[in-house]
Amino acid sequence: MPKISQKGQRMPASPIRKLTPYADKAKVDGKKVYHLNIGQPDIETPEGMINAIKNIDFKVWAYTPSEGTLSYRKKLVEYYNKLGYNITTEDIIVTTGGSEAISIAMMACLDAGDEVIIPEPFYANYNGFASQTDIVVKPILSYIDNGFALPPISEFEKVITNKTKAIIICNPNNPTGYLYSQEEMDALKELALKYDLYIFSDEAYREFCYDGRTFISPMYLDGIDENVIVLDTVSKRYSACGARLGCIITKNKAVWTTSLKFAQARLSAGMVEQIAGSAAVDTPDSYFEAVNKEYTSRRNNLVNALNKMDGVYCPNPGGAFYVVAKLPIDNADKFCQWILEEFSYNNQTVMMAPATGFYSTTGAGYNEVRMAYVLKNEDLQNAMTCLEEALKVYPGRTIDNEQLAASK
Amino acid sequence: MPKISQKGQRMPASPIRKLTPYADKAKVDGKKVYHLNIGQPDIETPEGMINAIKNIDFKVWAYTPSEGTLSYRKKLVEYYNKLGYNITTEDIIVTTGGSEAISIAMMACLDAGDEVIIPEPFYANYNGFASQTDIVVKPILSYIDNGFALPPISEFEKVITNKTKAIIICNPNNPTGYLYSQEEMDALKELALKYDLYIFSDEAYREFCYDGRTFISPMYLDGIDENVIVLDTVSKRYSACGARLGCIITKNKAVWTTSLKFAQARLSAGMVEQIAGSAAVDTPDSYFEAVNKEYTSRRNNLVNALNKMDGVYCPNPGGAFYVVAKLPIDNADKFCQWILEEFSYNNQTVMMAPATGFYSTTGAGYNEVRMAYVLKNEDLQNAMTCLEEALKVYPGRTIDNEQLAASK
Repeated sequence: MPKISQKGQRMPASPIRKLTPYADKAKVDGKKVYHLNIGQPDIETPEGMINAIKNIDFKVWAYTPSEGTLSYRKKLVEYYNKLGYNITTEDIIVTTGGSEAISIAMMACLDAGDEVIIPEPFYANYNGFASQTDIVVKPILSYIDNGFALPPISEFEKVITNKTKAIIICNPNNPTGYLYSQEEMDALKELALKYDLYIFSDEAYREFCYDGRTFISPMYLDGIDENVIVLDTVSKRYSACGARLGCIITKNKAVWTTSLKFAQARLSAGMVEQIAGSAAVDTPDSYFEAVNKEYTSRRNNLVNALNKMDGVYCPNPGGAFYVVAKLPIDNADKFCQWILEEFSYNNQTVMMAPATGFYSTTGAGYNEVRMAYVLKNEDLQNAMTCLEEALKVYPGRTIDNEQLAASK
Repeated sequence: MPKISQKGQRMPASPIRKLTPYADKAKVDGKKVYHLNIGQPDIETPEGMINAIKNIDFKVWAYTPSEGTLSYRKKLVEYYNKLGYNITTEDIIVTTGGSEAISIAMMACLDAGDEVIIPEPFYANYNGFASQTDIVVKPILSYIDNGFALPPISEFEKVITNKTKAIIICNPNNPTGYLYSQEEMDALKELALKYDLYIFSDEAYREFCYDGRTFISPMYLDGIDENVIVLDTVSKRYSACGARLGCIITKNKAVWTTSLKFAQARLSAGMVEQIAGSAAVDTPDSYFEAVNKEYTSRRNNLVNALNKMDGVYCPNPGGAFYVVAKLPIDNADKFCQWILEEFSYNNQTVMMAPATGFYSTTGAGYNEVRMAYVLKNEDLQNAMTCLEEALKVYPGRTIDNEQLAASK
């Protein structure tokens, strides 16, 4: 029997999805499971996008150009330039989701053994995409105590070698929700210029900034056009995760041309998606205002509920729709499995993603979980009640009632 | 300015698409261009599939399971088991087109430096997918003179090393249209078992077999379940290339589980596509009968027209919708560019794919082109007239009129 690849053996299972069998079992057992593990919003996809699908009028479902249809790229230019990106259709390659944007950009810029620096915790699948092509991830720890702010530039410099080719940031951040400041982005720019590094800017959550705070793309910064590669997706922006439609944006012509070769190998992105994506650009501002209001309210409720629990700490993030919370537990992987397998409260339980899967450093995040606030407030409240009750009885709980009483 | 990757520099441009700028220019100049370069059929997508898109009734365009929706995988089981594959939903991973099926299967089974044997000429993008992960392609020449039959097994054995992990076959073949016989498939089976190799079976053109000939999948052969990985797509079957919907089928559980990890990293295939793909399985036989009749007629006309031209030879293939023809030319790349740039007949010209891009061996196929018979007979006839006239005046023509006269 032929062997699978070593790469395949090393490839990490998704920390977001690996507990799915336990959740499925819980459901079979009749429990209601609140899914906070995955960034699959319950928000409705804009009507214009759905109608565009229903109104398709082609007879042959054909390939599109490998770089995306010109009509969709024109609509994307309209969307991005309204935000100040100052791009043309020649700066865009349409991809199958943000996932493919990341894969292709990595392959165009990095070889096996090359290193990419990523502040951790980070979107777990960066590990997967790096593993695919034997790229080495060099993590830099960020800390829950300061809300997962960008680590000091000196920490980046400590791990830079002649193999370092790129930095990946996800802004607003998945999994922490942290929104990078102008000062932090400026510092990253100086670092990229000093060491001639790419900045891969994963902007999947661009539209999700709260409390009036502003998103800063590296595309807004002067003098680093050759360094910046934006990786984007419609998944979260329009609650259209199943569309698998994203893009690469770069003004670096060598990167664009090279990325196109990888895009040509897989022929094209989806045609129906590009039709729907074009319609999506005309989504009215009122849609985003309503969504922002809803997420702000959910975040406030979730963060408040968490911080009221004994021994729990959760920073209040500026963007995205995730939080990472520290729990009084011995092992997040064990806890997240236990709460699905062994626990229920009013016949309900919660699925969360252990934060360990978002760190590359062994042991980091052992007592942290990521939660996506993609459910209605009422469901979130029920989920938090479950979590609170679960923490009281979890066998691996790390504070006892006497300690608690003493601390109060 | 940061450098692009060496991998990206080595990555071949698509031989099918690289002449596109010249075709675009010809169109701007007012010429009609017959596209025989790409396997984009003009056949209409089945109505049931189109209607499934128009009738979607979801409010949230959501992720699907990474292995594909259970409902779509059930329909696929229905499709494949009718053909005798004897599989379950647990043997399938739904992918974004056949392209992703190939990429994922390669990553699950092969590491950088591992070798895969492919009879050439072969589907050019195998080179691209292999390059992506630094897999080494070992070509085995097949020859136009015997219609591109499978090379003798002894030729495979000559290139087998301890790095050899797999054989890729495309059956019916792209670009040659060759349909492998039972004897050839049995020989491949023995080879795979003897050397413990995977057989990657690209079956994109399964439905396109002519003259009553039968398609043999390695899934029909006993005793090699652990070796076989079928790579499939709906692109050609239902003339739905822009759907980007394919799958991996394998009974090898280690390969399935490992492939799923790569599938999880990219989250999911498209949701609308899986809905449409489910409907496609109910496409009536009459659709396929009409399509088969149409392609048979086109193939006959194309092959006849080619073989009537001075100095041209084209075998009559048993399947797919491609032919590779030998032309009296010095250089197929130059010729295919010249006919777009410099030539027209009645203000019309033809886009073809130089066969060189389908060979890995330098120099092989220098006087061959691939043509896809994806246009109506009338258009094919016009295209052939253009080609015939072009061959008469092409400066790099390798036979002259005196030679011709002498040979007659």
